[in-house]
Amino acid sequence: MTAQTKTDAWTADRDHLLHPYTDFSTFREEGSQVIESASGMHVIDSEGNKLLDGIGGLWCVNIGHGRKEMAETIAEQVMKMQYYNPFGHSTNVPASMLGAKLAELAPGDLNHVYYTCGGSTANDAAIRLVHFYFDQLGQHRKKKIISRANAYHGATYVAASLTGIHGTKMGFDRIGEDFIHHVSAANLYEKPDGWSDADYCDYLVREFDARIQQLGPDNVAAFIAEPIMGAGGVLVAPDGYHRRMWEVCQKYDMLYIADEVVTAFGRLGEWFASDALYDYQPDIMVCAKGLSSGYIPLGATLLSTRVYDVIAQPQCEGGVLSMGLTYFGHPVACAAALKNIEIMERENILEHVREVGPYLQESAKSLMNLPIVGDVRGSHLMLGVDLVKDKGTKEAIGDGVGEKIFQGCLKRGVIVRPVGDRMIVSPPLIISKEECDEIVAAISGAIKDYLADEGA
Amino acid sequence: MTAQTKTDAWTADRDHLLHPYTDFSTFREEGSQVIESASGMHVIDSEGNKLLDGIGGLWCVNIGHGRKEMAETIAEQVMKMQYYNPFGHSTNVPASMLGAKLAELAPGDLNHVYYTCGGSTANDAAIRLVHFYFDQLGQHRKKKIISRANAYHGATYVAASLTGIHGTKMGFDRIGEDFIHHVSAANLYEKPDGWSDADYCDYLVREFDARIQQLGPDNVAAFIAEPIMGAGGVLVAPDGYHRRMWEVCQKYDMLYIADEVVTAFGRLGEWFASDALYDYQPDIMVCAKGLSSGYIPLGATLLSTRVYDVIAQPQCEGGVLSMGLTYFGHPVACAAALKNIEIMERENILEHVREVGPYLQESAKSLMNLPIVGDVRGSHLMLGVDLVKDKGTKEAIGDGVGEKIFQGCLKRGVIVRPVGDRMIVSPPLIISKEECDEIVAAISGAIKDYLADEGA
Repeated sequence: MTAQTKTDAWTADRDHLLHPYTDFSTFREEGSQVIESASGMHVIDSEGNKLLDGIGGLWCVNIGHGRKEMAETIAEQVMKMQYYNPFGHSTNVPASMLGAKLAELAPGDLNHVYYTCGGSTANDAAIRLVHFYFDQLGQHRKKKIISRANAYHGATYVAASLTGIHGTKMGFDRIGEDFIHHVSAANLYEKPDGWSDADYCDYLVREFDARIQQLGPDNVAAFIAEPIMGAGGVLVAPDGYHRRMWEVCQKYDMLYIADEVVTAFGRLGEWFASDALYDYQPDIMVCAKGLSSGYIPLGATLLSTRVYDVIAQPQCEGGVLSMGLTYFGHPVACAAALKNIEIMERENILEHVREVGPYLQESAKSLMNLPIVGDVRGSHLMLGVDLVKDKGTKEAIGDGVGEKIFQGCLKRGVIVRPVGDRMIVSPPLIISKEECDEIVAAISGAIKDYLADEGA
Repeated sequence: MTAQTKTDAWTADRDHLLHPYTDFSTFREEGSQVIESASGMHVIDSEGNKLLDGIGGLWCVNIGHGRKEMAETIAEQVMKMQYYNPFGHSTNVPASMLGAKLAELAPGDLNHVYYTCGGSTANDAAIRLVHFYFDQLGQHRKKKIISRANAYHGATYVAASLTGIHGTKMGFDRIGEDFIHHVSAANLYEKPDGWSDADYCDYLVREFDARIQQLGPDNVAAFIAEPIMGAGGVLVAPDGYHRRMWEVCQKYDMLYIADEVVTAFGRLGEWFASDALYDYQPDIMVCAKGLSSGYIPLGATLLSTRVYDVIAQPQCEGGVLSMGLTYFGHPVACAAALKNIEIMERENILEHVREVGPYLQESAKSLMNLPIVGDVRGSHLMLGVDLVKDKGTKEAIGDGVGEKIFQGCLKRGVIVRPVGDRMIVSPPLIISKEECDEIVAAISGAIKDYLADEGA
C-alpha cells in the first residue's frame, strides 16, 4: 500500500482496532488504508484515490455503493420503528414482509426464516437448528456435520471450525472436532492428471459416501457446502457434483445446508444458485451479504417446511424455541433488504449479471496468456485467478506475489482481493463491460509490471 | 395477548418467521403482536395501542426510540460510505473514531477494540481470542472457561453454552463441554437461611477457588460474568463479590471477561459498571445493546493492552489474525454508536440515570406489600420482581402467572418482560419519574387483578 496520510482516523485505527486478518509484522508501521467515501462502483480513500471496487466491499455490495433511496428507506425506518424485541410472539413489519419475500424468492419450500446478523451467525444457527431438529426426531446421535476442505463458513467459533481453509485457522483452536468433519473440496484445477472431470466427480461422490459409511449414517446429520467456493478460491465444482452430493444426502437421510452467503442475490445471475444452476433443493439455505447489499448487517437461515414442521413442535410442556439474537429481524436491516431486493427487481440486475458475467469470465481468460497465471475460473461475477511458479507443476507462486499484484492493481485504480496466491474479483452487480475490461487490464498490467521487475 | 388484527404483516410473520422463544403450542393460532411504530418511551402496535416500553426494546434502546438525529446520521453515513471491507489493513472513519472513543470511555487500559454485530458474537469472539491468547503464550492447556449458573451470554452455539440459564437450553445440545464449566450464580434471594451476605460471598469465592483447583489452574483460562445478571433474574451480587472473584483470577493468572452487554452505556448510571461500581478491572469487556442503542446491530469486544500485546504478535511467518466478521466495524453501525454516545453525553443521560434509577428501585419496593411478590431487586434501570407462591418458602409461582402479569401490564399500556416467574424492567434511560411510577403501578395493578381473579 502507498504510504497513508496520518489522519486522525488513521491514528485511531492503528492505536485501537484489532482488525480481522491483520499482519502484525507490518501493521504498527503501515496502519490501514482509510476508505472515506463510496459511490456506485467506486470507493475513495483518504488520499483522494478513486478506486474501482472490484470486490464489492467484500462480495456484498451487490447494488453498488451510496444509493440515495437506500439511505432514505433506512432513515424512514429508523424514524418509524428502529427496534423492538423480536422474541416470543412479537414482530415488526419489515421482518415479516421480508420473510414473505424470501419465501417467494427461495426455491421449493424454503418458506421459513430465522434471522441473524450476517453469514457467520446464520451458519452457526443452521448447525444448532440441525442438532435441535434431530433431537426433536429422537435421533440424538445423528449430529455429525460434513463440511469441505477450503470451504469458508464464517467466524463464530463453530463457523470457523466448519471452515476448511487451513490459513484461516493458523494459531487458532477448533471446536466441535467431535462432530465436524471435512471431505475434499471440488477443485478441478488440482484434480489428478489424466482424470476427466467426470472421473473426478465420481471420486468426490465416492469419498463422501465412504466417509458417511465410516462415521455411520445414523451419526451424520448434514452436509454443508457453498455452490461455488468463495474465499477458498472461487472453485467451481464439476458438472453434476452438487446434484449427486445432494442425492447421497437423500440416501442417508441427511440435511443439505447450502451456504449461499456469496452466491445468492444475483452474483450468479439468480436469486439463489442451488436449484436454478445446480439442480438440487437444499433443506437449509444460508444467506447474508447480497441480502442487504451490506448496507446494514443482516443474515438469514431459510428452512424447508419439512425441517420447520419438526422444529415447530413443542419439545416439552411449556417449551419454547430458546435461541435467538437480540437483533433477530432487525427492522432497519430488514427494511434495507426489502428495498435492496426491490432495486434488483426494478433494474433487472439479475438479467444484467447474466449478460455481463459471462463477458467478465471470457475477458479474463486472456490472462491465461501470462506465464504466471495457472488458472482463470469462476462463473458470472465470481472470478478467481491462480498465480503459479510453473504452469506445468501448478506450484503456487508464494513470496507475497499476490500482495504485489494487489498493489499493482491499486496503482491502476482497481481493487481486487489477494487471498494467498489467488486474486479474487467479485464486483458490484451493476458493473459495466467497460469496467470488467478495466479490472482485467489492471490485473494484466500489474502482472506484467511484476514480471518486468523480476526481469522475467 | 389481545387478539391481533390479521394484517399482511401478521400473516407473513405467522407463515414465515421462526422467532426466538416461540411457544409453538399457541403460535399458529395467536401469531405475533406487530409493533409498527416507536417514539421516545413508547411503541405502538398494529391495533393502535400506545405502550410504554418498560424493557427498552430488549435492554438496549437506551436513548429512546425514533431519534431524528440518529436517522440523519445513519442516512448521511449510508450516502458517504455504507460499507467497505474491514479486513487486513483497511478501515473506515466511523470504526476508527469509535475505537478511540471506546478506549477513552472504558476503564483502565481497555484500549483495543474487536467489533462484532452484537453481544452473542462479541462473547463468542472473546472466547476465541482468549484461547488464541494462551496459545500465543505457549500455554496450550490453559483453555477452560468458568461461567455461572443463570448467566446469559448469547445465542451463538458457544455463547449459548456459556449461558447458564437452564430454560434457554431445553431441547438444545451444548458445545464445548470439555472446556466450559459453571459455578453458582450470586443469588442473594436464594442464599441459605441464616447466612449473612458476607457468609454467602465467602462461600461463592471459595467455591470458585475450589473449582479452579479441581480443574487445575494451568487449565483454566478465564472467568466470564455479568456485573448484574440480566436475563438470569437481575441478580445483584453481594458487596465485594466481583472484586474478590477478580482477585482469584489474578491469583491463578486467569483473564476476567466482563459481559457488560446490558450494564454498559448508562443502564447503571456509568459508561461501564465493572470498575466504577464494583472496583475491578476486566481484561476483556464485552459490550453491545446500549452501544448503539439498538439502532443498528453492533457489538464490541474490548481488550486490555496486556491482552492485545500478546495477540498482536505474528504467530508465525506470514501469519495474520485470521478471524473476523464481514461486518466488523460496519461504518453505518459505528456512526450510529458515535452519535448515540454523543447524545448521551450532551443530554447528561448518565446523571439522569443516577437520579431516576434509585427512584425506580425505591418506588418498586412497594410491590413487596403484595402477597405473591417475593423479592424486588436491582440497581438503577435494571429491575427484577420475583413472583412466588409463598414468601416463606420462596417457591416460584409457576402456572404461567408471569405471562398473566405481563398481559395485565399490557392492558394498562405498559410493557414489562416476563422471564418465567420474574418480571423484568429495563426502560430507555430517558424515563421520567412519572413513567417509573406508571410501570410500578401497572405491575401492582396487574398483580391485584390476578389475585382478585384467583379469589385470593
